[in-house]
Formats: sequence, structure tokens, C-alpha cells
Amino acid sequence: MQPMSQTRLAAIHPALSELCMHLARIADVRAAAALLEWDQETYMPAGAASVRAEQLATLHQLAHEWLISERTGELLEAAAAAVQDLPAEHLAVRLVEVVREDYEKARRIPPALVAALARTESEACEAWKQARQEDNYARFAPYLERLLTLNREKAEALGYEAHLYDALLDQYEPGMTAADVQRLFEQLRVHLVPLAQAFSAQPQPEHAFLQRYVDPERQWRLNRMLLKAIGFDLQRGRLDASVHPFSTGIAIADVRLTTRIDPHDFTSGLFATLHEAGHGLYEQGIDPVLERTPLADGASLGLHESQSRLWENLIGRSLPFWEYFFPHLQQLLEGVLDDVSLEAFYRAINRVQPSLIRVEADEVTYNLHILLRFELELALLEGNLSVQDLPEAWNEGMQRYLGLQPTTLREGVLQDIHWSQGAFGYFPTYTLGNLMAAQLWRALTAALPEAVICMQQGDFQPILTWLRERIHTYGRAWKAPVLLEQVTGRPLEVEPWLTYIREKYQALYPAASVSLL
Amino acid sequence: MQPMSQTRLAAIHPALSELCMHLARIADVRAAAALLEWDQETYMPAGAASVRAEQLATLHQLAHEWLISERTGELLEAAAAAVQDLPAEHLAVRLVEVVREDYEKARRIPPALVAALARTESEACEAWKQARQEDNYARFAPYLERLLTLNREKAEALGYEAHLYDALLDQYEPGMTAADVQRLFEQLRVHLVPLAQAFSAQPQPEHAFLQRYVDPERQWRLNRMLLKAIGFDLQRGRLDASVHPFSTGIAIADVRLTTRIDPHDFTSGLFATLHEAGHGLYEQGIDPVLERTPLADGASLGLHESQSRLWENLIGRSLPFWEYFFPHLQQLLEGVLDDVSLEAFYRAINRVQPSLIRVEADEVTYNLHILLRFELELALLEGNLSVQDLPEAWNEGMQRYLGLQPTTLREGVLQDIHWSQGAFGYFPTYTLGNLMAAQLWRALTAALPEAVICMQQGDFQPILTWLRERIHTYGRAWKAPVLLEQVTGRPLEVEPWLTYIREKYQALYPAASVSLL
Repeated sequence: MQPMSQTRLAAIHPALSELCMHLARIADVRAAAALLEWDQETYMPAGAASVRAEQLATLHQLAHEWLISERTGELLEAAAAAVQDLPAEHLAVRLVEVVREDYEKARRIPPALVAALARTESEACEAWKQARQEDNYARFAPYLERLLTLNREKAEALGYEAHLYDALLDQYEPGMTAADVQRLFEQLRVHLVPLAQAFSAQPQPEHAFLQRYVDPERQWRLNRMLLKAIGFDLQRGRLDASVHPFSTGIAIADVRLTTRIDPHDFTSGLFATLHEAGHGLYEQGIDPVLERTPLADGASLGLHESQSRLWENLIGRSLPFWEYFFPHLQQLLEGVLDDVSLEAFYRAINRVQPSLIRVEADEVTYNLHILLRFELELALLEGNLSVQDLPEAWNEGMQRYLGLQPTTLREGVLQDIHWSQGAFGYFPTYTLGNLMAAQLWRALTAALPEAVICMQQGDFQPILTWLRERIHTYGRAWKAPVLLEQVTGRPLEVEPWLTYIREKYQALYPAASVSLL
Repeated sequence: MQPMSQTRLAAIHPALSELCMHLARIADVRAAAALLEWDQETYMPAGAASVRAEQLATLHQLAHEWLISERTGELLEAAAAAVQDLPAEHLAVRLVEVVREDYEKARRIPPALVAALARTESEACEAWKQARQEDNYARFAPYLERLLTLNREKAEALGYEAHLYDALLDQYEPGMTAADVQRLFEQLRVHLVPLAQAFSAQPQPEHAFLQRYVDPERQWRLNRMLLKAIGFDLQRGRLDASVHPFSTGIAIADVRLTTRIDPHDFTSGLFATLHEAGHGLYEQGIDPVLERTPLADGASLGLHESQSRLWENLIGRSLPFWEYFFPHLQQLLEGVLDDVSLEAFYRAINRVQPSLIRVEADEVTYNLHILLRFELELALLEGNLSVQDLPEAWNEGMQRYLGLQPTTLREGVLQDIHWSQGAFGYFPTYTLGNLMAAQLWRALTAALPEAVICMQQGDFQPILTWLRERIHTYGRAWKAPVLLEQVTGRPLEVEPWLTYIREKYQALYPAASVSLL
């Protein structure tokens, strides 16, 4: 019944087969939870919401119990002894190291804290929804307070060297610290605030044609055509509809994307599809030998986001990409864009305009939203900002970073779900992903000078292969900073992204006065 | 039996709360497996098949391990002590009794036999697929042999009084024995063989119009309209497409049906939808207090089938049903059936014609296919028929029961998947379901003389309510024979079904010479 898995697991190292069987069972339960979560956002009947929450709680609790069990410790010990003479880069050694880290971290958090977090997150999420609806911050504030307290406890339990934020960040971006993020974000802030101001002060290109009606059926064909063209394997994945687009790896052989289809905003679904496809290509590119192991995942949220941003922005909003696809788009849309030129389309999909809502932000101003969130969550956790003062600090920050003032909480401090889910240390990964994407893209185009010509010809195989061989295939075997340094020869830096933005948008807004680095 | 109240799980009995928590975890894992299975037939990408098989094996094994654990035994013992003074019909007493039976049966089968069965079933299923494709019985025969041996062992392990078949039948139809089935089926055979001959000797009504093209989108609207009309709750359920229609209860609040859409055979999908809706109405009708307990299921496969057959045939192929729906159908199909009368449509969907394939059989001849399968599987298990001689016995039986000869194995002995899945004792439940449906329908129409008028007016609420209150609400709390006797005042009999068939088809084929009982 398990010949397939034994072959796969044996390929990692025969001595690890018992550990791998144990991990595979955990992976199976996690995969089931992932499918239940995917289903919840796509096909689940509304009336099943409460029983689904209980099913998911059971599965997550079970996977956690198995991970922190004595059995894991014993198997790890035996495995560590078996691989001690292997070279450090052997997959078996990496597996043991990653699992040991997961195991030790998970065991550091007392079960009572795990339970308190789960309960409070669930309640806070409901409170956040109601607070949004009523535009009433007081409804949410006590839950935020409790979540901060619990997350400080969690950080203390996990342990850290310099800053309690390190322990929380580490859950999403292993290998990076609060100090790293602070340094990078400060370098970014200095240049980006004036840059964004300069571009957004310019007259906006025409873009009303993007709101023309496009039949949903046609949009699905368009999005699936793009997926196929860039190499997303629909035999090992799907594209469906959901309110908020997302991607999820049920397994390496089962990667699911969602998008949203708005008949009067076809590029919204199109770029959501390309974004999620970037995540999906990463998951599909993981070495199949890692199926049903904890290595079958991205190295970090930042690196994951780098792949989605790379396909969405550096490729999907580039001129060479549309030099190839725009004629196909015009044809597929049968007349809708016949009076629009490639250049006008390219300008429209790249217009810069500060806005209140993070998820609607353009490529240039997006990171400003993240700088603000990082600043605020750090201050909240440190106790330098009270929960009560958060809305005011938010509005002050929006003014400082983007020159805008929210008039409702819904388009202000209550716009994101993350904090209500107890996810502190998560936001920075969005910007880290943008930075990584630009740094990887620079290395890729240096190694593959033909990348631009390939895009102009609609041939994405060389680009995908380059990413697969250097990033995707490793899954979680190496941390993101290690992979990045290995692939680009440099630690993470802001310069590649700033240069990319300057060059691209200076060409789009030639009248903007932009200083060089 | 006490009427069930719509309260929460804990309300079954406070002393059972620990047992219920334990059972709820098992139910959650089973629900996850059910969703993975549903997904496999509906949306799963083809490339995920092998990893999905491993995920499912893990979940099923886990649910089994938890059920047979010492913990279950301890909780059962405590629960039994807590409820010993309650009346026998108290839900808490029923729960303890059903779980104890499940627990004891599951523990009787040695783990090695469970594993051998799972492995052999999986291999046999693959062999069956290949044998079908190659029309090569020898490819499948050795697996059938092993499955028979293992199922004899299983029956011995489970234990039985009169016949080893009892132990196998009991898995699907608790409370019935091989002797019961033999007696009922013999009574049926005597009358049904000449009856089927008499009807099928008559000239066939016109039915070519059923093969007219109907756009799939329109068929989906039609099927969903019917679901809503008969009371299937699409807020707590879904209808999707799959190759073989099925229904599955992920939870009482999450019941999923599938159908198949053939542009040139719209009634195939329509009756599949009504059939699966019958199953689905049963699951949706279970008392919500039973959610996440092992009682949240049908009492038996036969009783489940009675509900699907009742909605598909006794209601869905009745004249009163179409007196209401036919004008709506004509309107929805915009012209496709404008030249067809209600009577011609009613005759066409009820034509009797012996055929080789069970799943395509009409209401009259269907049970003959089951009589043959029961006869053969009983003889195989008893050793009165060798695996080698099975194809010949099949063909001889088809001649005897239906006057037909298969020319390929695919339309003969290899047509059904059941035996390859090790499901012996399953087939009779189809016919038991048909018999139960007629017996329940007689009781229903006696209690609700207005049922026919309700159908003519498209009002199915009184019928559904009657079934809900007497059958659905109890889930697995009572065995099928108990419920049937309670509701109809009689044990299961063939007469109601025979009378229903005689009356309905004598009217459709007045020239047929049919003897009265």
C-alpha cells in the first residue's frame, strides 16, 4: 500500500524511513486540513461553517500533538545518529535539522498557551468582523490587547536573543531578525517616500478602458491560458474562484490557486491569477522526493511572496510580457480593447496612485503600507504604543507615508485580518518578498540575458527552469537567507528593488523628478 | 421512541460528554476523509491521485485506531454505567449501544487482517479495471479468490449464528440475515420474473425525444430547481458533477450530491439528481443533536437506498409529480419538448426493457440484476461456486432472469466495482431498499391521503416532514427493521413493492397479461 512513499522516502535516506513514515502521517493530516480550508473558501455550503471549524480544530490539534510527541523525539534522535557522518548539505541531514527545529519550537509553547491563542484568535477574528461592520474600534480593542499579551508570552516561550519580535518573525521568516528588518526598511523608507511622491504627483495615464465589461467565462479562459503559458501544471493543480484570492499546496502534486472575477475589472483577476500562480509554481517545483515531508513547503513567507511578486509584477506587469500577450489578449477579448494600444495598456496597468487600502496598492506605494504596519506592530509589542492609541498612530502614519487620511476604520486600521488572527511578524514578509523578487530577478537576467527575448516570445520555460533549479526544488531544506546568498551572491538588499522601480517608473513618468541612489 | 429535540451535542447526556468529545474527534477525521473522497471524484487534479490515496489511508487508519483504542472501551464503560437507569429508548442509551457494537466488531478483526484486506482491495480494484479494459477475466480471478478467502476470515472473526454471510451482510444491513434475504428474494423471484417478461414483451413507447440536445447549463438549472422544489437545502449541501453520481454526508450540515450531465440524455442526470437527493434528504434530516457522533448516518444501506428510490421512482417517475413539473420542464427546455405530451413523457421515462447493465436497468427489471448477484456471491462464499466458473454462472443467470446474454465481460460479470472492493453482502441492500421504499410509501400515503394532491401541486413539504419525523431524524439510533416495523406496523415484505409495480405498469402496459397475487 505504501510502495510509492517508501521509494520516495528511501531516496532521502533508508535509515530515516521510520521518521519519514511518522512525518508522512503528520503531513497527511495537514494536507487534509489544507483541503478543508480550501473547500471552505471555494465550495463549502454556508451552513457548514461551524462544524467545519470543529473539524479543522481537531485536525490541527492532532498534527500538533503528533509533532510534539515523545515519538518524534525518539525518531529524531535515532535519525540524527544515522546521518551524523553525512555531509551537511545531504537532504537527510537537512530534513533532520528542520524537523528538530520545528519539534523544539513547538514543544517550547505550553499546551495551555496554544489553546488560549487558538481560542482568542477565533474570538478576535469574529470581533474584528463586527468592529469593521460597525466601524467601532472599541469592539475589537480588548481582543487585540489579549492577543498582544499572549504573543508576548509566546515569544518568551519560544526564546530570542535580541528582541522578542525576533521569535514571532521567525515563525514566518526563519533566519531574519527584527534588526534586519529595521535596517532594510529604514533604507527603503528614506528613498521610497520621495520616490512615491514624485511618481504619484504626475498626471495619471488613461485607464478607464480597464473597467470595460468582460464576460466571466472569457476571463476564466484568459486566466487559464496565462497559467498554461507560464508553466503552471493544471494536471497537478487547479484554478477556482474565491472572495479573496489565495494559493495552497495540498501536496506537491496538488496545488490550488484561486482568483476573483469582476466583469468590470478583468485585470484584477488576471493579476491575482499571476500572483497566485507565482506561489503555485514554487510549490509545484519542489522536489517530488519531499512529498509528505515537512520540507514540502516554501523556505519562508518572504521567499514565497518573492515568487508571486516576480510573476505578478516583474514579469506580469513588464513590457516584454505584454509585447507577446497583448495581441492575444485583444483577440480573446474580441473587440473590447481594439482601440487600445499596447503602450496605453502597459501604462494603465502600471499607474502609481497612493491609496488607503494595502491590497489595492500599486507596485510603488505597496511597501509604504507595510513599513507602517511593521512600525506599529513593533511599537505595540514593545509597549511603546497602546492599543487605545493605535487608530491615531495609524492615521498619523498614513499621512506621513502616503499623504492620505482614512475616514473609516474599514479603510484604516481595521482593513487587514492579520492582527485579528494573532499574526504579528507576518506583515514584513510582504516587503521582504518584493525585495527578494528584485534581487533574484537581477541575478536571473544576468545569468539569462535572453530572458527578455524569451518573454517577448511567450517562452517562460528558461525563466521557470532557472527558478526551479535554484529555489523551488529545495522546498524548506534551506532557509531563505541561505538560498538568496547562494543564488545572488549577496545578502538581502534594498538596492535592486529601488533600482528596478526607479528605472521602470522613470520611463513611465519621465517628467517626475527622481534622484539617483 | 421519544421524539428528538433540536438541542446541542452535550444535551444527549451530560455524563456522556467525554465519550462524545472522543467520538467527535473520530467523526471529524472521518468527515475529512469523506471530503477528500468527494474531492477526488469532483475537483482533484488527476496528478494528485497517488498522494491522495496515501492521505486517505492515513485518515481511515487513524479513525480505526481511535475507535478500537482502550480509551474508547474505558469511556464506553463509564458511559454505560452512567446511563443504566435511563429508559432503553433514551438517545444516550442508544448512542452507547451503537458505539459499543461498532467498537466490539471493529476489535474482533485482527489488525493484520484489516491491513491485508485494505491492500488486497486496492490491488484487486486496479486488476478489475485492467481486466475490464482487456476483457480478460483471468486478470481479475486470482484477486477475487483472495478477497473471498479474506472475507471468509473476516466473517469468522466477526462471528455469526447461522451463516457466515450474516456477518458480512451485517456491515451494510444491520439486523438482517442471509435467511431473511433468501426468503424475501425467493418470494420476489417467483412473481417478478414472469412480471418483467410480461411487461417487456409489450411494444415500447416512443422515447427518442429523450435524446434531444439539452444545453448542460440548462440541465444544471433544471436539476437545481428540482432539488429546491423537493426540499433539499442548498445552504447545507451542494450539487456537482462526477463520472458516477453519488451522495456523501461530510456532516449533517454539509451533504453533497453529484450527478452527470449528458447533453443528449437529460433525464439520466435528472433521475440521478433525484436519486442522490433522496440520499441527501435523509442525511440532512438527521437530528442536528447527532452531529459529530457515529449516529449521524443512515440506519442501513437498504434504508438509505429506500429514500433514494422513493424520491427517484415512487415520486420522481410518478404521474402526479410530472403533472406538476412537466409544464415547468417544457418551459425551461424552451421548445425541446413542445411537441411531447405529458403522457408520452411519462410513458417514455417508465419504459420496461431488460438490459445487461444493472445501473441502466428500469424500475421493474432492476431487482432481477440483484437477485442474480446475491445468488452468486452467496455460492462463492459458501464454496458452492468456484471463481473459475463464475463467468459461466453469470451468463446462465442472466439468461434465466432476464433472457439476455452478455457478449463481453464488461457488460457481464465485470460490470460492477463492488466485489473488487471486497464488498460482499452489499448488493442485496439495493433490492431491500426498493422493497422498503414501497412499504414506506404505502404507510405514507395511508397516513397522508393528500400526498398525491400535494405532488400535483408541487408541494413536497408534507411528504418530507412525514419521512423526517419517522425515519430521518433518528439517524443510526435504531436499526432499519425496528424503524420499519415502527413506521409501517409490519416487518419487511415484498407484497407492497409487487403491488406498486403491478398497478403502475399494468396501467402503462394494459395489454400485458399479469396475474394478480
